[in-house]
Amino acid sequence: MDKIEMHHTLMAARARQKMNWDDLGEAVGRSPVWVASVCYGMNSAPPDIAQGLANALGLEDEALIEALKAYPTKTWDGAVPQDPLIYRLYEVVGVYGPTLKDVIQEKFGDGIMSAIDFSMDVEREEDPRGDRVKITMNGKFLPYKSW
Amino acid sequence: MDKIEMHHTLMAARARQKMNWDDLGEAVGRSPVWVASVCYGMNSAPPDIAQGLANALGLEDEALIEALKAYPTKTWDGAVPQDPLIYRLYEVVGVYGPTLKDVIQEKFGDGIMSAIDFSMDVEREEDPRGDRVKITMNGKFLPYKSW
Amino acid sequence: MDKIEMHHTLMAARARQKMNWDDLGEAVGRSPVWVASVCYGMNSAPPDIAQGLANALGLEDEALIEALKAYPTKTWDGAVPQDPLIYRLYEVVGVYGPTLKDVIQEKFGDGIMSAIDFSMDVEREEDPRGDRVKITMNGKFLPYKSW
Amino acid sequence: MDKIEMHHTLMAARARQKMNWDDLGEAVGRSPVWVASVCYGMNSAPPDIAQGLANALGLEDEALIEALKAYPTKTWDGAVPQDPLIYRLYEVVGVYGPTLKDVIQEKFGDGIMSAIDFSMDVEREEDPRGDRVKITMNGKFLPYKSW
Amino acid sequence: MDKIEMHHTLMAARARQKMNWDDLGEAVGRSPVWVASVCYGMNSAPPDIAQGLANALGLEDEALIEALKAYPTKTWDGAVPQDPLIYRLYEVVGVYGPTLKDVIQEKFGDGIMSAIDFSMDVEREEDPRGDRVKITMNGKFLPYKSW
Amino acid sequence: MDKIEMHHTLMAARARQKMNWDDLGEAVGRSPVWVASVCYGMNSAPPDIAQGLANALGLEDEALIEALKAYPTKTWDGAVPQDPLIYRLYEVVGVYGPTLKDVIQEKFGDGIMSAIDFSMDVEREEDPRGDRVKITMNGKFLPYKSW
Amino acid sequence: MDKIEMHHTLMAARARQKMNWDDLGEAVGRSPVWVASVCYGMNSAPPDIAQGLANALGLEDEALIEALKAYPTKTWDGAVPQDPLIYRLYEVVGVYGPTLKDVIQEKFGDGIMSAIDFSMDVEREEDPRGDRVKITMNGKFLPYKSW
Amino acid sequence: MDKIEMHHTLMAARARQKMNWDDLGEAVGRSPVWVASVCYGMNSAPPDIAQGLANALGLEDEALIEALKAYPTKTWDGAVPQDPLIYRLYEVVGVYGPTLKDVIQEKFGDGIMSAIDFSMDVEREEDPRGDRVKITMNGKFLPYKSW
Amino acid sequence: MDKIEMHHTLMAARARQKMNWDDLGEAVGRSPVWVASVCYGMNSAPPDIAQGLANALGLEDEALIEALKAYPTKTWDGAVPQDPLIYRLYEVVGVYGPTLKDVIQEKFGDGIMSAIDFSMDVEREEDPRGDRVKITMNGKFLPYKSW
Amino acid sequence: MDKIEMHHTLMAARARQKMNWDDLGEAVGRSPVWVASVCYGMNSAPPDIAQGLANALGLEDEALIEALKAYPTKTWDGAVPQDPLIYRLYEVVGVYGPTLKDVIQEKFGDGIMSAIDFSMDVEREEDPRGDRVKITMNGKFLPYKSW
Repeated sequence: MDKIEMHHTLMAARARQKMNWDDLGEAVGRSPVWVASVCYGMNSAPPDIAQGLANALGLEDEALIEALKAYPTKTWDGAVPQDPLIYRLYEVVGVYGPTLKDVIQEKFGDGIMSAIDFSMDVEREEDPRGDRVKITMNGKFLPYKSW
Repeated sequence: MDKIEMHHTLMAARARQKMNWDDLGEAVGRSPVWVASVCYGMNSAPPDIAQGLANALGLEDEALIEALKAYPTKTWDGAVPQDPLIYRLYEVVGVYGPTLKDVIQEKFGDGIMSAIDFSMDVEREEDPRGDRVKITMNGKFLPYKSW
Repeated sequence: MDKIEMHHTLMAARARQKMNWDDLGEAVGRSPVWVASVCYGMNSAPPDIAQGLANALGLEDEALIEALKAYPTKTWDGAVPQDPLIYRLYEVVGVYGPTLKDVIQEKFGDGIMSAIDFSMDVEREEDPRGDRVKITMNGKFLPYKSW
Repeated sequence: MDKIEMHHTLMAARARQKMNWDDLGEAVGRSPVWVASVCYGMNSAPPDIAQGLANALGLEDEALIEALKAYPTKTWDGAVPQDPLIYRLYEVVGVYGPTLKDVIQEKFGDGIMSAIDFSMDVEREEDPRGDRVKITMNGKFLPYKSW
Repeated sequence: MDKIEMHHTLMAARARQKMNWDDLGEAVGRSPVWVASVCYGMNSAPPDIAQGLANALGLEDEALIEALKAYPTKTWDGAVPQDPLIYRLYEVVGVYGPTLKDVIQEKFGDGIMSAIDFSMDVEREEDPRGDRVKITMNGKFLPYKSW
Repeated sequence: MDKIEMHHTLMAARARQKMNWDDLGEAVGRSPVWVASVCYGMNSAPPDIAQGLANALGLEDEALIEALKAYPTKTWDGAVPQDPLIYRLYEVVGVYGPTLKDVIQEKFGDGIMSAIDFSMDVEREEDPRGDRVKITMNGKFLPYKSW
Repeated sequence: MDKIEMHHTLMAARARQKMNWDDLGEAVGRSPVWVASVCYGMNSAPPDIAQGLANALGLEDEALIEALKAYPTKTWDGAVPQDPLIYRLYEVVGVYGPTLKDVIQEKFGDGIMSAIDFSMDVEREEDPRGDRVKITMNGKFLPYKSW
Repeated sequence: MDKIEMHHTLMAARARQKMNWDDLGEAVGRSPVWVASVCYGMNSAPPDIAQGLANALGLEDEALIEALKAYPTKTWDGAVPQDPLIYRLYEVVGVYGPTLKDVIQEKFGDGIMSAIDFSMDVEREEDPRGDRVKITMNGKFLPYKSW
Repeated sequence: MDKIEMHHTLMAARARQKMNWDDLGEAVGRSPVWVASVCYGMNSAPPDIAQGLANALGLEDEALIEALKAYPTKTWDGAVPQDPLIYRLYEVVGVYGPTLKDVIQEKFGDGIMSAIDFSMDVEREEDPRGDRVKITMNGKFLPYKSW
Repeated sequence: MDKIEMHHTLMAARARQKMNWDDLGEAVGRSPVWVASVCYGMNSAPPDIAQGLANALGLEDEALIEALKAYPTKTWDGAVPQDPLIYRLYEVVGVYGPTLKDVIQEKFGDGIMSAIDFSMDVEREEDPRGDRVKITMNGKFLPYKSW
């Protein structure tokens, strides 16, 4: 079972079980964003979590558990994303990229924020003028070194 | 004076005055990230802020203030960024884009996070295993409507 | 049922029922352009409209109704469209983009026209020298804010 | 004088004279959007209008008038625009392109909306929940013919 | 039946019937180039022509006739064509594009040659040094207008 | 003097002398389209024609004559042209490319129309419904051979 | 049978019959490079050669012979080839393109080497330091002409 | 002096001295194609050859000799060349690439023809039907090895 | 059996046999990196190694052995890789490419490191602050020659 | 002084002083590859190293030292490099990317080799059949984590 079939199997089970990402995150003791990224085939699950996700969704298929544990090859469609929700994030990187580079490197020195030793969270912030999406990214700072 | 010349003038003054983004943000009562984006020519400053930035940096040039107030045309180089710090943000959008879309739309319904009614913050999180960069994005949720 | 199969099912039923977009719009009390965008899989329908569309077309398939309600991932082929009708719209954006930016921002200040809080209409304007297509776009103005 | 120098000369004069696009349109009896497109070098002005624009802006330069009358070569940067205001229009073409094609061709038969025999208007629509931008495009329908 | 299946059906029938494009053009009273473009799925046929083409090729399939009448979405592979015959035409547009623009606009004023109100013909010109291909394009001139 | 400077020199002289392409073609006994392509730097002129063009335009500059005779490196901007007049020609190649390939190869066998042993003409065809542009391309047929 | 299926059929037969390109070239009295290009679907075979190839490979399938005779649409994957053997040829064109243009046009005048009236040969040149590949290209010179 | 200035200096001197590539090749005892590639900045000359080229062209500039000896960074414009002479070579690589791969690897085993340990020659072949360009490429075969 | 099917067959057998790349390398007396590249279809195996790999994995399929011996056409997805592990290698080439060119050519003269007469090794280097990946590339230096 | 001017200043001084990368590395106690990357503007130097490099090259310019210390924006030309030495490295990433991913992840688990906490070395390996280039890359392994 490859990551694409795994994804469809999990999404169908999630709909059947009426579990949202918060439920699924809680069931395995992990963040809902990370759990979603696993179910989208973009992260591998450690064995106990793979088992836990299968249990929570009522799926006892060994091939599915193997697929959850497999190390993914991460790819995406095209250089510029098209779906408006994803494009807005790309636009933020384009518009604010040099700003973020300068602010981060002023605070930390020459280096980068890791996208591997990294976590991310999404919250709903209530606001009478319209609720707001709050995305928090948290990555280890990695300094460039001389050698 | 166009945004590029404005940017170089501001960066040189900032170096001369030894003001970092926090200082400059404080001087005009705005977030350091937003102030940096203005100085990178990616946002326009309201008149009082434009004046305040010029004052803080000891620059009393009318053309500079006009440049700060001008509405920018926002562009960036290429579809795929190359600087490693900015690329990692692009990679996050590629790897986690569909995950974020699903998590946000599950929480809010069909719609997007605005990149216009939007703010962003960068913090340093101390950690004995290596300090961490924390980026917070906050954008209004905009629902798709039928008509 | 994914959005592509949904689209083919709806188009076939529409042909069988000899209903045009005006008829279908009227049947569910929505604009024909928006209804068409739903049937092309580019917008999601609220539950009652999804049901209404299925009824109007004589399709009582639950999977179809789910597909109508599903939040779409919006994508299109290529960066430059090729079909002449669609290319002409792209050309209008290329030729008049900076003009529209200037005229809108002069009228409203620094910001954009939303493509999410947005509606669109198409009319036929009779003209003895050849009838004319009139497209009206209507989007909320979103101002950039400082923070 | 090429179209780029012409553009900068006109924009500087417009700022000096504090004339907005409505003023300039009124001065020559044309739509502000079309006048702006001429000043952005994307359309040529007939001789009397070229003279009228120069007069209205207090510019009596023969080379400028020649530049206004010159037939432009229309080009733009990149296949996918980046400025958020212009990108949203591009996104509308991507998301609604096939919808518009179907709705227009159902109303008119096989053919296109001309982008040459074409006009466009921008209005501000007041709305207590936030004012709205209204863009109207009006192009002659051109049917495909057999031969 | 989509345009691709329609194309293969027609080409197979054409081979069986040993009809060339001249024969088929004559059978329906249209130019062989236009008839070929219909059979390649790049133009729609009016009902009587669609019927005529089906008759001429001995195909009495209603779905085929519907496919011939359907309004096509015109697309092609890639930005730069590769087949040498088609590339040479692309090269002509690249090499002579600005020349043609200048010559046409000198003769007609600012505007374009329509590719919609358009016809095209191919002839064989005998020449002792090697026969020559003569392609004639004929499109309505569309002037840009002020508004 | 390179081809770009040569082009600007020739265009300015042409304007001063009020000579159109027909006049210039007649002056040197060549087609106006070919003469224009030479002045746009896309073809080289034989020595006598180079001299004739310089004479006709009242330019007796040796460097200019050398530039006219120089063999050009033919390039153009981008894979997809943007100016509407040139784009329409590109669109014709895209839409009708496979049609032309089939019609030509049916008439001539496997091979191509040369773009080198090639000529082109532009005529104005009067028409009460709007005058028409007629472009004629004439290229030697080159058959593929076995070896 | 399309060119792809034809290719696989021929390659399988060639392996079964243990015939290399030299054998196959000899069998039909043609160059092994040209025969290989036919079997790769990049050239059409005259009827007698098509028959000869089928005979030599013990394939008496009429559809195969038709596929060998069919005029190919020549396309390839991507603008920059990736296989190292083919990339080296592309690199030669990139590195030596302007050099070849200058050397050829100095010898022949303004014009090109035809890729249609063209043949090619591959030889093995023994060399104690490592054998060498010798590729010979031979194309008719086509001069640009004035008209 | 960089390679671009070096190139222009050499080309001007070559024109002044009326030396063609054959003359220049003879003057330094090297192939005219290789000498041209050096003068186009695509290969470095050993010290004695650099001195010899300067002598032959009557240029005694130390900076020029250094530029001739400098190791070049080899780049070219775009992925797909546009000048027709160079494009035809690119087309040959596209059309015959897989054919050449198969013929070479059948003769030599798995490996490539080097583009570094490589030479190339251009000859004029007289032919009553039109003279022909003969290009010979000669590169060391490099086998892939296991390790 | 093509290289893709071969790859899947080998990977499944490897999982069944619980053999890692070191085991498989040892089994055939070759480097694990090279063996992996063969199993990924990017290198051909000599007959005895192909047999050895099949034996080691308990696969006695003649078609598989033929597939292992076949000379591959090496291609990859896209110009810029997306998987983070592979992208980091691409980034190293982008960031350090000109540095490596200068350091290598200073040491060796004008030329390149072969990617054909080439081997590569991966080692795990223990480090208390986090283990390190050590990749060693070893390629023959190929000097450019004059001719 | 920007990184480009800094680079040219350093290269000129290096030539004047006849210091190679080994000399310069030794002068500041760092690897020659890292020192070269600093001089190419792709890494920033800590203050003492910046001073040391300036001293070693006899350059006492404060602006130069600031430029050496500045945090670079790392970019490179194009997605696919063209210089043959750099292209071969790109080819290695394309051909062996998935192989390296598998071998590394088998040894270390799901994660990547850092290109930031990274060093690189180049050595000359003598070999009677032709000396060899040995490149060693050494990067910290970064495991993906769940959160």
